[in-house]
Amino acid sequence: MQLATVALPDGATRAAVLQDGGWHALPAPDLSAFLRSGEPVRPGAELPGAVPVLPLPTPAKVLCCGLNYAEHIREMGHELPSHPTLFAKFADTLTGPSEDVVLPSGLRVDWEAELAVVVGATLRRADRATALAGIAGYTVANDVSVRDWQNRTSQWLQGKAWDGSCPLGPVLVTPDEVDPAAGLEVVCRVNGEEVQHASTKTLVFDPADLLAYVSAFTVLRPGDVVLTGTPGGVGAARDPQRFLADGDVLETSVSGIGTLRNTVRFTA
Amino acid sequence: MQLATVALPDGATRAAVLQDGGWHALPAPDLSAFLRSGEPVRPGAELPGAVPVLPLPTPAKVLCCGLNYAEHIREMGHELPSHPTLFAKFADTLTGPSEDVVLPSGLRVDWEAELAVVVGATLRRADRATALAGIAGYTVANDVSVRDWQNRTSQWLQGKAWDGSCPLGPVLVTPDEVDPAAGLEVVCRVNGEEVQHASTKTLVFDPADLLAYVSAFTVLRPGDVVLTGTPGGVGAARDPQRFLADGDVLETSVSGIGTLRNTVRFTA
Repeated sequence: MQLATVALPDGATRAAVLQDGGWHALPAPDLSAFLRSGEPVRPGAELPGAVPVLPLPTPAKVLCCGLNYAEHIREMGHELPSHPTLFAKFADTLTGPSEDVVLPSGLRVDWEAELAVVVGATLRRADRATALAGIAGYTVANDVSVRDWQNRTSQWLQGKAWDGSCPLGPVLVTPDEVDPAAGLEVVCRVNGEEVQHASTKTLVFDPADLLAYVSAFTVLRPGDVVLTGTPGGVGAARDPQRFLADGDVLETSVSGIGTLRNTVRFTA
Repeated sequence: MQLATVALPDGATRAAVLQDGGWHALPAPDLSAFLRSGEPVRPGAELPGAVPVLPLPTPAKVLCCGLNYAEHIREMGHELPSHPTLFAKFADTLTGPSEDVVLPSGLRVDWEAELAVVVGATLRRADRATALAGIAGYTVANDVSVRDWQNRTSQWLQGKAWDGSCPLGPVLVTPDEVDPAAGLEVVCRVNGEEVQHASTKTLVFDPADLLAYVSAFTVLRPGDVVLTGTPGGVGAARDPQRFLADGDVLETSVSGIGTLRNTVRFTA
């Protein structure tokens, strides 16, 4: 099943489910509100002209795992970890699947294609099985990172939480249809050139591990988002380093879910 | 002027302002909602039996500055910074001024007394003057830190975001009544013994610096909270190290604002 927040021709948004190739209304203005409502998925009227936008506009928590693919861990010069490296973003950090990523000029902006997990239950000190059962579904993210700010201090937040920098979407696919353990292909392209390509099979901490681990210290609730980390191939780890330029088209895909297509724009 | 969220004898909460020694109603269920409403402070009916509780139950953003007092920076083994070190907490991390701090047993739990700044305006790429004018007021926080989790990886979040670990309050005092630049005394006591004592005069980055810096990458809105960092004297930097024990009474004060008094409880 595919769920989304869709924009309608009149400018309103609506939570929706894909059925027979068309988006059908769910009783909430967006998928954040729908997941929080706890309502079952009962497709309503078809929504002509519906276009998927940022699926989760108001998560209370967005957590991200760094250093979670062996190859990326090595390229960044770290040892394989015994615990997930976690940092936060804000709801404001997220943007839609086809929005421009607009940032001030002069920043060193890098790509990080990622599988994102969306929470579907209240998880508090959950074990792995409970965490797995509490996954609402999966979506695609690009943890676009401002490397110069990320590396100003020991804590990455200020390079990871620029408003509108993290594309998310286009849809949420439920766990009966995609299984990260079976291997989803995570791919990032810049202007059509493939720069990252890895399988979620090689995640050090899988989605259930991450949700269980996080829930040991903070409760997760329906609509919260956890980014699972990026594989090798980021621009900062290249020789020479490569960062995004004004007008670059960033495409981020996870097989079985979909593709984000965002143009990077630098402003004064 | 002192503002608070108060609990009433019937169990409800209310935003309130102190006038002539009594709490008077403001038109919102709590101070988060009141600050977001943008309403002016017009004291309503007196609220007999009102008791200050967690002043800001639903901030969208809680950011914290680490390493912001020269003495604490040295005790943690770091150089004086050119940029603030920032990390996040969640609304769930906060607890009230007299609540128990309840954590699982076996953790290395440390104190960090701090001045907290509460945002009163929408700040986006604000300069220092705009940031200063956008401060709603100041309150007291203890950035209680789970050191073993904080040090598991490079990113501190997992030691800094335990639900209900960060006491905040008891009141918000407006900037016309307290001035961190003039020197507020930040004091932490454990079972009556003073373990931290410093003046906000010695902050490396002051409240306006921090709000301006944060607003360069993410918008701040009324009710958001920024913790300004802790001075020297934390337990992890002692020789031998000292951590909080079950039943310890943690008192956190900032002169001109008030005192938090929280008992630490470890559960199975």
